[in-house]
Amino acid sequence: MKRGVVIVAGGTGRRMESEIPKQYLDLHGKPVILHTLEKFFHFDPDMKVVLVLATDHRKFWNGIPLSYEYSSRIEIAPGGESRYDSVKSGLRLMDDNLVVGIHDAVRPLVSLKTLERCYESAAERGSGIPVIKMEESVRLVKEQGHSVRMDRLKLRRVQTPQVFKSEMIKEAYRQPCEAAFTDDAAVYESLFETVSLVKGNRENIKITTPTDLQLASILIRTVG
Amino acid sequence: MKRGVVIVAGGTGRRMESEIPKQYLDLHGKPVILHTLEKFFHFDPDMKVVLVLATDHRKFWNGIPLSYEYSSRIEIAPGGESRYDSVKSGLRLMDDNLVVGIHDAVRPLVSLKTLERCYESAAERGSGIPVIKMEESVRLVKEQGHSVRMDRLKLRRVQTPQVFKSEMIKEAYRQPCEAAFTDDAAVYESLFETVSLVKGNRENIKITTPTDLQLASILIRTVG
Repeated sequence: MKRGVVIVAGGTGRRMESEIPKQYLDLHGKPVILHTLEKFFHFDPDMKVVLVLATDHRKFWNGIPLSYEYSSRIEIAPGGESRYDSVKSGLRLMDDNLVVGIHDAVRPLVSLKTLERCYESAAERGSGIPVIKMEESVRLVKEQGHSVRMDRLKLRRVQTPQVFKSEMIKEAYRQPCEAAFTDDAAVYESLFETVSLVKGNRENIKITTPTDLQLASILIRTVG
Repeated sequence: MKRGVVIVAGGTGRRMESEIPKQYLDLHGKPVILHTLEKFFHFDPDMKVVLVLATDHRKFWNGIPLSYEYSSRIEIAPGGESRYDSVKSGLRLMDDNLVVGIHDAVRPLVSLKTLERCYESAAERGSGIPVIKMEESVRLVKEQGHSVRMDRLKLRRVQTPQVFKSEMIKEAYRQPCEAAFTDDAAVYESLFETVSLVKGNRENIKITTPTDLQLASILIRTVG
């Protein structure tokens, strides 16, 4: 089954204390976003790649020297006001009968094995969402300062890529956005059955702070 | 109100790929456990400190050159088979009418402000548990592969020190251990009211892997 990915790079760099959006910062010799793209091409050289770029980030993207091989194969879609709009914009360029991932540009450390598990699950069961176990105790806050302990063994932290059959996720994203649509899995589940969880990888962090970027530069040596 | 802390250093180093238990590894020029102890002494020079040591870790502890000022002020309690037994062992050396924290030796990066919030809350309301917000989407696993999305805005990750009025937490720890006693807050709540949550600090990580130790060496410059 042919594969595709929508890489969402719409976010601004406000939290990074940096003028440059985080996906364009250097990690181990090249921009974060290039690591992310290369990971998907490495996983599947035939991958259809759509990159969603915020309009005012074009200059950062254009500043990256790309080989013709890459630049000719990446389709650019315009970012929207919200993440929901950006994903929708990227999905418009995706054909039916694909398995398509939706991935944060700032998660360059997704492993090849995680990608394999996500795409295989989506091909077989309609969806594949990478999750990892929770390491710390977790509490659920109730009203008036009360909180209750959760069973952390039953909790999972959700990563990306969240992978789906393209016609289904496209249909889900044709709906008007709702407050409950906190991630792609939530959008999908509003129309279809519960998503299938697969094992993610612990290094697959979302780079949102300068510390995350430093951590990523440590972790990059351990991901394959 | 006089303050105390039980620092639990019973854990073994299995996950660290190292013969030396993680609390004795070097961080920025001195053992992790020394950073942790100094943080509490810095916060309150009159702090009563009980250190719970696994019996077969004595050699690591004895290998640390300590000033007389420190060595004379730290009381050692023997570790037990489980964390529950170790905490209980430490609490035996604590007087009543204190506010007493229970803290992981492998969390050297707790901030002074977090300590202040925890101890103040315990003095006023009986308990103070440091928590931080969840950054990622979270799902709760149900039977047969099903899972549901949680509202992550209502979830909190729990850190240490978990601080209590000493006579209450000592009474709670006189009970036989139960499977539901996953942390000190759970032991406390089995006898008393719901715990009070306070703001922790994001850098207050638990060092359990070599990557954690590298991350800690980045973070140590930012904690005060």
